Amino acid sequence: MSAKYTIGLDYGSDSVRSLIVNVETGEEVASVVFEYPRWKKGLYCNAPKNQFRQHPKDYLEGLEYTIVEALKKAPAGVAENVVGISVDTTGSTPVAVDEKGTPLSLTPGFEENPNAMFVLWKDHTAVKEADEINQLAREWDIDFTKFEGGVYSSEWFWAKLLHVIREDAAVYRAAYSWVEHCDWIPAVLTGNTNPKTLKRSRCAAGHKAMWHEAFNGLPSEEFLTKLDPMLGGLRDRLFKETYTCEVSAGKLTPEWAAKLGLSTNVVVGVGAFDAHLGALGGQIEPYYLSKVMGTSTCDMLIAPMEEVGDKLIQGICGQVDGSIVPGMLGMEAGQSAFGDIYAWFKQVLMWPVENILAGSTSIDEATKARIIEETSSRIIPELTKAAEQIPIEDSGIVALDWMNGRRTPDANQNLKGVISGLNLGSDAPRIFRALVEATAFGSKAIVDRFRREGVRIDGVIALGGVAKKSPFVMQIVADVLNMPIKVARSEQACALGSAMAAAVVAGVYATTAEAQAKMGGGFETEYHPIPENVAKYEQLYDKYVKLGKLIEFGM
Amino acid sequence: MSAKYTIGLDYGSDSVRSLIVNVETGEEVASVVFEYPRWKKGLYCNAPKNQFRQHPKDYLEGLEYTIVEALKKAPAGVAENVVGISVDTTGSTPVAVDEKGTPLSLTPGFEENPNAMFVLWKDHTAVKEADEINQLAREWDIDFTKFEGGVYSSEWFWAKLLHVIREDAAVYRAAYSWVEHCDWIPAVLTGNTNPKTLKRSRCAAGHKAMWHEAFNGLPSEEFLTKLDPMLGGLRDRLFKETYTCEVSAGKLTPEWAAKLGLSTNVVVGVGAFDAHLGALGGQIEPYYLSKVMGTSTCDMLIAPMEEVGDKLIQGICGQVDGSIVPGMLGMEAGQSAFGDIYAWFKQVLMWPVENILAGSTSIDEATKARIIEETSSRIIPELTKAAEQIPIEDSGIVALDWMNGRRTPDANQNLKGVISGLNLGSDAPRIFRALVEATAFGSKAIVDRFRREGVRIDGVIALGGVAKKSPFVMQIVADVLNMPIKVARSEQACALGSAMAAAVVAGVYATTAEAQAKMGGGFETEYHPIPENVAKYEQLYDKYVKLGKLIEFGM
Repeated sequence: MSAKYTIGLDYGSDSVRSLIVNVETGEEVASVVFEYPRWKKGLYCNAPKNQFRQHPKDYLEGLEYTIVEALKKAPAGVAENVVGISVDTTGSTPVAVDEKGTPLSLTPGFEENPNAMFVLWKDHTAVKEADEINQLAREWDIDFTKFEGGVYSSEWFWAKLLHVIREDAAVYRAAYSWVEHCDWIPAVLTGNTNPKTLKRSRCAAGHKAMWHEAFNGLPSEEFLTKLDPMLGGLRDRLFKETYTCEVSAGKLTPEWAAKLGLSTNVVVGVGAFDAHLGALGGQIEPYYLSKVMGTSTCDMLIAPMEEVGDKLIQGICGQVDGSIVPGMLGMEAGQSAFGDIYAWFKQVLMWPVENILAGSTSIDEATKARIIEETSSRIIPELTKAAEQIPIEDSGIVALDWMNGRRTPDANQNLKGVISGLNLGSDAPRIFRALVEATAFGSKAIVDRFRREGVRIDGVIALGGVAKKSPFVMQIVADVLNMPIKVARSEQACALGSAMAAAVVAGVYATTAEAQAKMGGGFETEYHPIPENVAKYEQLYDKYVKLGKLIEFGM
Repeated sequence: MSAKYTIGLDYGSDSVRSLIVNVETGEEVASVVFEYPRWKKGLYCNAPKNQFRQHPKDYLEGLEYTIVEALKKAPAGVAENVVGISVDTTGSTPVAVDEKGTPLSLTPGFEENPNAMFVLWKDHTAVKEADEINQLAREWDIDFTKFEGGVYSSEWFWAKLLHVIREDAAVYRAAYSWVEHCDWIPAVLTGNTNPKTLKRSRCAAGHKAMWHEAFNGLPSEEFLTKLDPMLGGLRDRLFKETYTCEVSAGKLTPEWAAKLGLSTNVVVGVGAFDAHLGALGGQIEPYYLSKVMGTSTCDMLIAPMEEVGDKLIQGICGQVDGSIVPGMLGMEAGQSAFGDIYAWFKQVLMWPVENILAGSTSIDEATKARIIEETSSRIIPELTKAAEQIPIEDSGIVALDWMNGRRTPDANQNLKGVISGLNLGSDAPRIFRALVEATAFGSKAIVDRFRREGVRIDGVIALGGVAKKSPFVMQIVADVLNMPIKVARSEQACALGSAMAAAVVAGVYATTAEAQAKMGGGFETEYHPIPENVAKYEQLYDKYVKLGKLIEFGM
């Protein structure tokens, strides 16, 4: 009997990646990336207004291209032995659809209308509507936000719906229902796009749409009607049931099987969010905080339902039965900016090079370009080298990592970053070190919150660009958290997690834990806290907390 | 009858300048600058420990050189018609002297001992001793700091004495008395260096040594003895009387007259501090705050004794009868860092150019040097241009200008700078603008304090490098203060102020006001507040005050 394979499909913010994995060995046999062509041109977006929309054609073209091309790269015989496909996407990234479940932008008259497209997770046009939802939730007898940390975000499902239908009368009239990106791709592949029957992701519904069994599904019609009569009417055309990632959404349609060069026996799993399946691919285990560390962080924690299922964890981004691993409570938290803060400081420091040097008439253009490129690529490594030499507490600088607001604990998008303790000797490496420490303190604030709410954390698993690239940052985080941090080996944890889920959906394994054990890449390195640093950072962290309280409640 | 001339001698931190002025017309006929050679080499200093000492030979060599060379540059006939010399220096800059009034570093065995040299104003080695003085002052029945704003600084006379005698047993044993720099130069020129009889400056004594008529001179022997028995014993070998700048210290000795090429009829005025005589040269008038705006600011205010003489002004740097203009209460305040904050930010931004570019192997050394030089010289002008385009309040950034502690109101050297309200779009020009606004807010805090304490301020007179060079900064200060600011024309206000004082000492004029009227250069420009900016800055200033209180009292 020949080996079996699954395909993990990972829709990120800028591109989609396919990954074909041997389900017995975990070997990654082929992978292809497709950048969204319309997105790349900046179409349908308005960055200063924080409007970010994506055209469904970008997704469909990428779906076909990445699977077909990956199969071409794979050894002969792989295509016939693919048994399952699972999909992860960004979220909340919903789209307005017609009665058949077709995104409006794929129907006549709406082709170029951004409001008829997917509203990307980071679209912040719905700040006002999120405030409205929070205000109503505070007044209502049931707190529908209580499983989402008690605060509803502008990045989420209902806020986005409310914003689009209020802004665009044509979409208001034409929208029969709404679908999340992670639900639409499996629906397309299996041919069941009917909004009332397509299988909806527990992960998306529970974390972003206030769905919960305790509410008998979505928030009540009365609540939604109070927000807007249109939303109330929508409730019945959305969903009541939700499914976790080990459930099948159906099998490939003949049309898609032919397009992709796969069999119609291939099962397609119910979708989920990228970070959640990424946690699976990144070797998540109970009570280990799985931290995807990139421009921002997404922090996930799983624990058996019977141990934590009855707790309400205040101030995190959501707690959903089975959203990450079936049978476990999936808890989500995160930092709105992490690597983005280092990138911001780099950008501040690049100003003279980009503005003065670039305008200089005394150097030729080629030399300028070389200097700008060299400075830009070396600035973080060189700052790191210099910052490593600075003893802890030497600088006296304490910063707050709220340059992009605060996601967790206690979401507050109005908060801003602060750098305090500056003197005339505070040079760039000292400020950089303080910014790195601030991001580590932000991580500790999340860990502290889980613990305060009665959820233990035994260790940290790190994924993402920062985890792979910066031993300097990782050591500081380990010292600040006073916990070892294991860095997952996989370079594409999200796609791998989807391939694992697909192996369970296809019946190769009974549980995701089994799939992880067989298909997982393990860890490439581990950071251990250095005791003398731990003690020093405890004191500095107290200052961070104190400064944070002053700024949050004093200003 | 031919024209008469006076010489103003201005001892700054790095150099001494002579200025020969026609007393009738105010024409500046010649000027020469001499950089202290030992100081320039960094001798006797230890910057990381904030130890800054100057050798008396640097002063003596500069005294001779600048006057002799200026006379050479002046037209024929000027030397014979010089009628007076007055001197201003930095302060508090005291030196330990022997019985004859000779600085110990000019006596055998002490030639290379920094503790036997002048302790420069910005030497901060005596922080602990200043704390000790403040603590004792709080417990004592008379508050000897009450005419100095209620807080004694490490930059001042008694703290420095206490520090040096405790640190250096040899100096402790050899020091008969102590003399301020501004008192020692007139003493040398007139030949009366006897510590018990040389004429002491009211300005130095009142602002820095807790001298006041109400105390019958210096602090009581009991108080000083309690600090250290040595200080108690010193009181009788210091002084009881003090003199304002219109009083003669004597005439040139034959020896110095010969050396300088002047007559022995030349009278030498009692010395004073640079900022104080600078205020005179910068056209100070009653109730106009005279702001010397450079790396830091020195803010001076004069008002008739009969109107404000009985007020105690809390939190400023001192109030002394006649310290600036005889017959007026001289009040001093200031910001510990002003232009230094812009220079600090420039230095932060220069880091990549100075560290990455300088280490690059892909560009030749000459090109590197050119780029570094060009970037360094253009960075503030370019930031200014960019910052001018940013609407007030657009950035949301609020900073505290305490990067070098806070001098006034309520001196507190432990405070540090803060930049708050940062987001990922906070670029270098926005931060720069916020820093400029912070320095302007620091100016307003001083004005507000004077007013709160019942001293009115009608307008501002600006002097110094920033006042001359940055219309951008000056407009913001005018908008924030909501007062017009007149910029004094003279490029060397301190030396001119000394020359004015010398003209009064020599009997050419009866009062400094008369000398100002005849010899003053007037104003070169005036900034008027823009009403719409004033309203916006009022709101921003409230945020600055609020942030300041949080940081000062919350942390």
